[in-house]
Amino acid sequence: MESTDLFRQIEFIKEVDKLKYIVRKTKLFNSDRNENDAEHSWHLALMAIVLAGHANVPVDLLKVVKMLLIHDIVEIDAGDTFIYDTQKSHDNTAEERAAANRIFGLLPEAQAAELMAVWEEFEAQQTNEAKFARAMDRLEPLLQNTSNNGGTWAEFGVTYEKVYTKKQVIQQGSATIWQYAEQLINESVDRGILER
Amino acid sequence: MESTDLFRQIEFIKEVDKLKYIVRKTKLFNSDRNENDAEHSWHLALMAIVLAGHANVPVDLLKVVKMLLIHDIVEIDAGDTFIYDTQKSHDNTAEERAAANRIFGLLPEAQAAELMAVWEEFEAQQTNEAKFARAMDRLEPLLQNTSNNGGTWAEFGVTYEKVYTKKQVIQQGSATIWQYAEQLINESVDRGILER
Repeated sequence: MESTDLFRQIEFIKEVDKLKYIVRKTKLFNSDRNENDAEHSWHLALMAIVLAGHANVPVDLLKVVKMLLIHDIVEIDAGDTFIYDTQKSHDNTAEERAAANRIFGLLPEAQAAELMAVWEEFEAQQTNEAKFARAMDRLEPLLQNTSNNGGTWAEFGVTYEKVYTKKQVIQQGSATIWQYAEQLINESVDRGILER
Repeated sequence: MESTDLFRQIEFIKEVDKLKYIVRKTKLFNSDRNENDAEHSWHLALMAIVLAGHANVPVDLLKVVKMLLIHDIVEIDAGDTFIYDTQKSHDNTAEERAAANRIFGLLPEAQAAELMAVWEEFEAQQTNEAKFARAMDRLEPLLQNTSNNGGTWAEFGVTYEKVYTKKQVIQQGSATIWQYAEQLINESVDRGILER
């Protein structure tokens, strides 16, 4: 690689620091402090490493980790969209694609294209890697909410049916993890922290 | 994997959430907000992905990323040690090893042994992966301090010589990145944000 490549990469590295300021709705475990996107991305990547053995089919773990480390970078421009938002879709809006073009576009051309493709692959949800990565993204807030007496469910009045619908995509990445997650959701109703 | 494995993995995933509360001395880019270890680990892992092409020799990138995602987990028990601390060594104290045993020990046995070995490899600094990972760990605060008018250097009165000594290990991971880093350090003296 040439030194002009390095300068562009450093610009990208500085720019993505802004992910640390993007605040999510969900809170840290056993806490009332909101999580930010950088912390969230770190946690998901580590979860993928630890849980990869439960994937329905063997996955390219480096690809999954790349996906998870970059999946929310578009929110630097587009902002975080709450998964149960009724006004705004979370999926791949024009705003998010423009953000991806701008931010990954800071990198040398070939690298920008590679990370853009990884991001698109995650969004498209067709490959095993994308499905397993999504499972991590759905599991973490479930663990947070169940350790936080309902967390965002209680705070925003989200009901069992909505949670179940959003979470069941976990099974596309891992039937084993979905079995565990489904049980957590059902127990949450029994515990009175998720409304039917 | 068995479901008892999954339960142990979930315990580990919950436990490592505490990394988000471990506050570093360094500040975010262009900011006066301190960085936490989870944000730091996310940033280093992403830097490794982006900068891997500059490694002195080709590295196993998944290994490097694993190292960086877990390298500070011991600080959940041992706390963050400032790199220029004159009282306490940053390197592999008994306290850090006990923390590694406890925290990685939450995982199923084989996985605990694997992550423990990855952590030990990073600490030992013998392999190409460990050297490149360390280069990332040294580069990020350099970028932060130079974008923060001296940051922790100014705040704690750290001089050129100490910075140069700590940072020059970058060249063991990447001569190209070290060339860039060395220039940044020298420019910092010229800019008056690092004392000779």
